[in-house]
Amino acid sequence: MEGFDILNLFIVLLSAWGAGALIKRIGYPAILGELLVGVIIGPSLLGLVETSSTLVIISEAGVILLMAYIGMEINFKDLGKASWAGLLAAIGGFVVPFALGYYVVTLTGGTSMAGLFVGIAVGVTSLATKSRILVDLGLLDTRIAYVLMAGALISDTLALIIFAGLSSFIDVGAVNMSEILLIAGKIILFFAFATAFGLYILPRIGKWMASRNIENRTTYFTLLLLIVFGLSELAELVGLHGILGAFVAGVFIKDGVFHDKITKDITRVFHDVSIGFMAPIFFVTAGFHVTLDVFKTDLQLLLLIVGVAFAGKILGTVLFYLPSGNGWREGLAVGTGMNGRGAVEIVIAGIGLQKGIITQEIFSILVFMAIITTLSVPLLLTWTTNWLKKRGELVKQFSRQGHIILGANPLALLLGKHLAEANKVMFIDANKGLCENARNQGFDCVHGNILEESTLNEASVKDFRTFIALTVNNEINLLASQFVNDILFIPEKFIVISPNKGEGGSINLLSSASASTLFSSKVDIQPWIQKVQDSNYKEVEVTITKQIDTRDWVKFHESKNNTLLPLVIVDRSGTKRPYRYNDSIDMNEKVIYIE
Amino acid sequence: MEGFDILNLFIVLLSAWGAGALIKRIGYPAILGELLVGVIIGPSLLGLVETSSTLVIISEAGVILLMAYIGMEINFKDLGKASWAGLLAAIGGFVVPFALGYYVVTLTGGTSMAGLFVGIAVGVTSLATKSRILVDLGLLDTRIAYVLMAGALISDTLALIIFAGLSSFIDVGAVNMSEILLIAGKIILFFAFATAFGLYILPRIGKWMASRNIENRTTYFTLLLLIVFGLSELAELVGLHGILGAFVAGVFIKDGVFHDKITKDITRVFHDVSIGFMAPIFFVTAGFHVTLDVFKTDLQLLLLIVGVAFAGKILGTVLFYLPSGNGWREGLAVGTGMNGRGAVEIVIAGIGLQKGIITQEIFSILVFMAIITTLSVPLLLTWTTNWLKKRGELVKQFSRQGHIILGANPLALLLGKHLAEANKVMFIDANKGLCENARNQGFDCVHGNILEESTLNEASVKDFRTFIALTVNNEINLLASQFVNDILFIPEKFIVISPNKGEGGSINLLSSASASTLFSSKVDIQPWIQKVQDSNYKEVEVTITKQIDTRDWVKFHESKNNTLLPLVIVDRSGTKRPYRYNDSIDMNEKVIYIE
Repeated sequence: MEGFDILNLFIVLLSAWGAGALIKRIGYPAILGELLVGVIIGPSLLGLVETSSTLVIISEAGVILLMAYIGMEINFKDLGKASWAGLLAAIGGFVVPFALGYYVVTLTGGTSMAGLFVGIAVGVTSLATKSRILVDLGLLDTRIAYVLMAGALISDTLALIIFAGLSSFIDVGAVNMSEILLIAGKIILFFAFATAFGLYILPRIGKWMASRNIENRTTYFTLLLLIVFGLSELAELVGLHGILGAFVAGVFIKDGVFHDKITKDITRVFHDVSIGFMAPIFFVTAGFHVTLDVFKTDLQLLLLIVGVAFAGKILGTVLFYLPSGNGWREGLAVGTGMNGRGAVEIVIAGIGLQKGIITQEIFSILVFMAIITTLSVPLLLTWTTNWLKKRGELVKQFSRQGHIILGANPLALLLGKHLAEANKVMFIDANKGLCENARNQGFDCVHGNILEESTLNEASVKDFRTFIALTVNNEINLLASQFVNDILFIPEKFIVISPNKGEGGSINLLSSASASTLFSSKVDIQPWIQKVQDSNYKEVEVTITKQIDTRDWVKFHESKNNTLLPLVIVDRSGTKRPYRYNDSIDMNEKVIYIE
Repeated sequence: MEGFDILNLFIVLLSAWGAGALIKRIGYPAILGELLVGVIIGPSLLGLVETSSTLVIISEAGVILLMAYIGMEINFKDLGKASWAGLLAAIGGFVVPFALGYYVVTLTGGTSMAGLFVGIAVGVTSLATKSRILVDLGLLDTRIAYVLMAGALISDTLALIIFAGLSSFIDVGAVNMSEILLIAGKIILFFAFATAFGLYILPRIGKWMASRNIENRTTYFTLLLLIVFGLSELAELVGLHGILGAFVAGVFIKDGVFHDKITKDITRVFHDVSIGFMAPIFFVTAGFHVTLDVFKTDLQLLLLIVGVAFAGKILGTVLFYLPSGNGWREGLAVGTGMNGRGAVEIVIAGIGLQKGIITQEIFSILVFMAIITTLSVPLLLTWTTNWLKKRGELVKQFSRQGHIILGANPLALLLGKHLAEANKVMFIDANKGLCENARNQGFDCVHGNILEESTLNEASVKDFRTFIALTVNNEINLLASQFVNDILFIPEKFIVISPNKGEGGSINLLSSASASTLFSSKVDIQPWIQKVQDSNYKEVEVTITKQIDTRDWVKFHESKNNTLLPLVIVDRSGTKRPYRYNDSIDMNEKVIYIE
């Protein structure tokens, strides 16, 4: 039995870190750098590192933890809400390349089992760079982005379910009816047990631990590891692969089972350990198994599989996307966006190689296919979305919509009126009178303490897109924003900061709450509240003639006129968004301010 | 090459978790349960699990991460401040059992190398239950507690240095002068490089990353793993054991290198991964290597080594402790408290076994020695400290002393006056006038924003024992306490909470700041500040005749008299502590309140 091999682990981790950081700089996901550096330092090129027990075991443990983490990040409630369009894209983008991949392999002499593996591998979708590329291309608020995200999630789940069915037959080989029934029975038992465990037993464990005031994060971490390893082993016992059990375990470790804060903390630890330590070892060593000879010996098959991956994914998406009524051009954009392959594909290909179902050549081709398709995503997606943009067919969409505003003072209500034109607006205030006043003006208002989870639940805060803290008290604004950030995910948090209000109000804290400043600068809102209260203000709308940063616009106007408070920016379609720091006002957008 | 062995990993982790949880309930450290359950489920008894590559590699990785974590927890500044008494106890408690252990082994026919290993193993000190047992025995504030903590840290460091010197000779075998010089040169080079890296290069990396606004926790985690593995491998290359490199890496990952919050976060991740996952695998599998036959075949040696461990540690401590002038009885208490062995001993014994320096019998004896000595600590320490208590020789001591009070209002100054009788008191206020007023009354006061790190540094907040937030603003109190808790370690945090002050003020947040309520109940302090300001109050001192909880005392008085604010509790030696929730007032202690 070999001992712990620090040297190779160090070299592999260092290479993964360096390559991941470099590739992320040019906008690609770390996994691409990890695969490439694995090919480079591995036996096929430089031969700097050879695989060892340590690398194998750490990377296999990493895959288990990674799949659990991927499961944790999938929210079935979100999947349920996923649009019809996302479902169509996912199915079309899976089924067509899956079928094509299967036929390519079987028609070129591969086994049908190898065909199924390659089919899954070309069918899988990975959001090439998660939201990063969508941010870079300014797509985050478009319908395409939501279709892509829903599509990738559904596709992952679909691929894993099919892989589940498939993997259970791997070890059996000969397949007759009674064996199929036995296997199917075992699988059904597994999922029945896992579901019962996840929906009934796990929440009870959570409640029991909460009732005993166990708050030690390490205890929860160990417990969740046990659940992940336990379900993983159980999956192996019924003939499924361990990664499926880990994935299912991750899916059930969700909101409501433990304290929200504990769940969030532990998810981050799983992220750190898998993405920051063990999974990169897997992806680099996956590169070790790649042989460059395929470019000579199997170039045709390589081109064929890559071609099938491209054509199947993109055309399949376009085709199945037609019934959505969103047009084939948007389908094309979605198809190009879903063309990347990543972690799940490499994991499945690795299992195929390990079990001897696919050859090293096919494995190498699948790795290059992942690299090439992922490389294509930013290029093709830029083309297709620019095309849509030019034709005016880039449709905006918000899955989380609406604004939650803390503080129902007159200024907040004025802002709320603007925002409510296109979106849900919900107020929270601890003052009963202010809340009633807001209700009289037709708003929803929850009367309660923002720092209590019950208030957040009553206001369904977590379904909102924006959290705005607009009280006169810096500390409340900061604390509320931090509290919301600690236990929920809300994409945008804007808070009012008053200048020189003594203690509190440190801008440093903004980053820990990942919030930015409403109105784009420190403002004492008390006088503004008074002005609005007394109707002693004038609302002005100006059209911007040249793109400008929100901060610069305020600075420019401050230099001329000190008494101006920008409320919202109106985009060209008429939609209003709060005026805040670190935003940019495009040409022809309007600013509405009061003075 | 074996693949990843989930089943055995699951069984071992589950056993570790269960046994650790059980043994912690009766006040012992988890490692004791892990060793015992390892003996039980391992080959020597039930034979449920056998060792596998997965277990070996995960446990060796765990030892590396554990040693890095132990290094992170050692603060050389604290070591520098460690008392003369602690140093004496550590040296005496190490040298005497070390020598005795060495002679027992060599005189019974063991090699001198085995003698040195056993010497280190019996010499090591582990604080059996860290602070847990000290809390249970009510010793946390005594001089003994500080001597014990300093002693254990020094002893760990001492043991590792001697082990460093020793381990470099293991692989060489024959020892002549030129070889010794070569080895010594390599070791010096290693430590010179590690020190230069830790003191000069690492802080620069930290600054560079801060300057590039890299705040991604996972990036830092991977970086620290690379540093730990890198120094660990470097140590191996110069002939030292990898655990030394990991330990040294941990020591240098300290305050000031990275953002305090990042360092704290990453330290917790190392804690979760080592203590919550990998290290327990090591300790359980250590139990696998134990043979119960030693009770038959080597009972004499077993008794001899356990006897030497007890007698050497306790008598050595008593003897060397005499020059401290704290008396031999206190030395005896310190000796019994330092009698436990734990992680470091098992790690060193494991290395000895792995390298073939000690036999499986000696290894088993060392494991039993760890179990027995650790079991003895609570019993013996209870006896010896009760004896001291009865003789009135249990001396109190605070290493972190003093109170930092946020808010320099008249009520705060009144509380400060009481606390300043025996301790340093420092005020922080953002209001210049209040701060000057405090200075006029002879207090130190830092004028600044509590939420900025510069203010905390100016006030040297981290050297204080107690943080008291006494402003009229709930949110400032909470936010400040949370901020202090996020970036520093301050043992006690007490904050004022006003009732029904609208938003904010949720008791829920107290736990996330690990603070408790000053005055033991929600109080609106504004009227009290006014009363003190106008000298319109009366100070009353009452002696308590029966032990009572602070909350109950307040409830009892509230039912009779609503206008009373308890300030401090005076213990029998005349020392005053702030009146707060979740404290108990002993018989003959006094309460000073105002009305």
